[in-house]
Amino acid sequence: MVNKMNKSEKIFVIGHKNPDTDSICSALAYAFFKKAKGKNVIAARAGEICDETRFVLDYFKVKEPVLIKDAIGKKLILVDHTNPSQAVDNVEEADIIEIIDHHRLGGLETKSPLFARIEPVGSTATIVADMFFSDNIKMDKTIAGLLLSALLSDTIIFRAVTTTEKDKKIAKELAKISGLDPEKFGMEIKKAGSSIKTKTEREIIESDFKLFDSMKLGVGQIQIVDNAEINERKEKILKEMEKMRLEKNCKTLMLMVTNILAQDTDLWIVGETAVAEKAFKEKVKNNSIYLKGVMSRKKQIIPPLREVLLKEGAL
Amino acid sequence: MVNKMNKSEKIFVIGHKNPDTDSICSALAYAFFKKAKGKNVIAARAGEICDETRFVLDYFKVKEPVLIKDAIGKKLILVDHTNPSQAVDNVEEADIIEIIDHHRLGGLETKSPLFARIEPVGSTATIVADMFFSDNIKMDKTIAGLLLSALLSDTIIFRAVTTTEKDKKIAKELAKISGLDPEKFGMEIKKAGSSIKTKTEREIIESDFKLFDSMKLGVGQIQIVDNAEINERKEKILKEMEKMRLEKNCKTLMLMVTNILAQDTDLWIVGETAVAEKAFKEKVKNNSIYLKGVMSRKKQIIPPLREVLLKEGAL
Repeated sequence: MVNKMNKSEKIFVIGHKNPDTDSICSALAYAFFKKAKGKNVIAARAGEICDETRFVLDYFKVKEPVLIKDAIGKKLILVDHTNPSQAVDNVEEADIIEIIDHHRLGGLETKSPLFARIEPVGSTATIVADMFFSDNIKMDKTIAGLLLSALLSDTIIFRAVTTTEKDKKIAKELAKISGLDPEKFGMEIKKAGSSIKTKTEREIIESDFKLFDSMKLGVGQIQIVDNAEINERKEKILKEMEKMRLEKNCKTLMLMVTNILAQDTDLWIVGETAVAEKAFKEKVKNNSIYLKGVMSRKKQIIPPLREVLLKEGAL
Repeated sequence: MVNKMNKSEKIFVIGHKNPDTDSICSALAYAFFKKAKGKNVIAARAGEICDETRFVLDYFKVKEPVLIKDAIGKKLILVDHTNPSQAVDNVEEADIIEIIDHHRLGGLETKSPLFARIEPVGSTATIVADMFFSDNIKMDKTIAGLLLSALLSDTIIFRAVTTTEKDKKIAKELAKISGLDPEKFGMEIKKAGSSIKTKTEREIIESDFKLFDSMKLGVGQIQIVDNAEINERKEKILKEMEKMRLEKNCKTLMLMVTNILAQDTDLWIVGETAVAEKAFKEKVKNNSIYLKGVMSRKKQIIPPLREVLLKEGAL
């Protein structure tokens, strides 16, 4: 049997757990799109709103989508994911009638035939906006603003390698309707999402921290868009890092200060520095090594360190 | 990284194993569509061509797609399926760059983001045809004929419950271009696919035969569009059925002669008939019970027979 959407049936449009701005704003905009087509569709979310998204919702004075914790027995439209492990609990017990996404297929099974539109573009918002335009559904300034926010967030203001020409074209249209400047507004969004103002030094270091026991090494990472704010607190953060190094019984403790716009990392180091200097072929100055083009701990930081330790017989 | 199709890279468009007419003809037409857009796309198949599809290919003088037995290292576009168990071997080791389908999602994982267009319509050919029309890609009589064949085959000439208004609308367009009458041509296709001319009596009974040991019952099923052809051979088939009944040590042996257009079944019976008469509340005449609306052995034949046997303490 094909899925028939009954006007009286409640349908939830929902993104992934740990929702980002694309998951929340695409859900809001797509619910608006379906309502414009006469369907009883409600925007939902599968988790807490993050700082970046909170800024966007407040900016456009839009209420957050309703929280759903379990999908059993519900009629759903999925946006921004198809991986069951990232979805609301019991997603495969739901009746999934539509999917709009821009990721790889994640192994989902649905009960019935469905409508799915998946494209290898920079954001789900790009696809949702495209659907408004092709179907001639009028969008107001607010919807255009939400979609532009999602697009700028997911493409890191057109800098992510996933960014396509289509994203740029759609962003131009959305900028025209919303009256926003993508580059400027994108920076505001990213700043709001990466602000360290309300965080303690310990919270900054621990926001994404990994311990490598056999290497007696700890490496944290914080993503920012503006180095000035964190540099002002460098001395205090280094002091806290040294405290953590002793607590965790590490030879070296590092913090990757990664600027997602400049696409570089200032690697802050306390404790023993010789291995890092050999690994990155740079002298440590003011407890720092500057690494252009480096963004990934897993791919660009840990392997060269491990190689040096292996060579020295320390592993 | 997004998928970029390089003109020089060979891409195969392929349907499921045990390919039906929709899988083969949608692959052929979509390869044509992609070639028209400058891509190096080749139609492929994951198994042998069936009688119905052979008739269609011969009718339009089109060569069958190339056979692929293993997907490792290949760049693929999947049509008419997403279930890995139905796909060419090692499909998840391939680089799947597109999917066009009309089934439920079947649990596939892809390596990278992709383009997928899935709609709850009656055939994959419906979606492929729609893409030609929306993108203004000109199709000749042959492509229109192949797509119409696939659409008529999968919707059982608009009689399947999966048939939508979109299928009917697209079929009209394809009929116009190909100059074919859907109802008449659909009958020809279905006749070719269900012809018993080349089959022996034993092959007719055994084409889809199941033994129910505890019930001492055997039930075969043959799908036809024209009862006259099989009725002419009824006496010989009944004789062969009686032979099989003794061989298999069954009390009763049945053959469901199911007309997929009329959506009914003439149930042919040899051996003991009392249980069938009680189950279907009809007297057996000329070794037959006529069952209007009955198409499914699993849902409509076995349960009432089992119920009678249970009541009588024979199970």
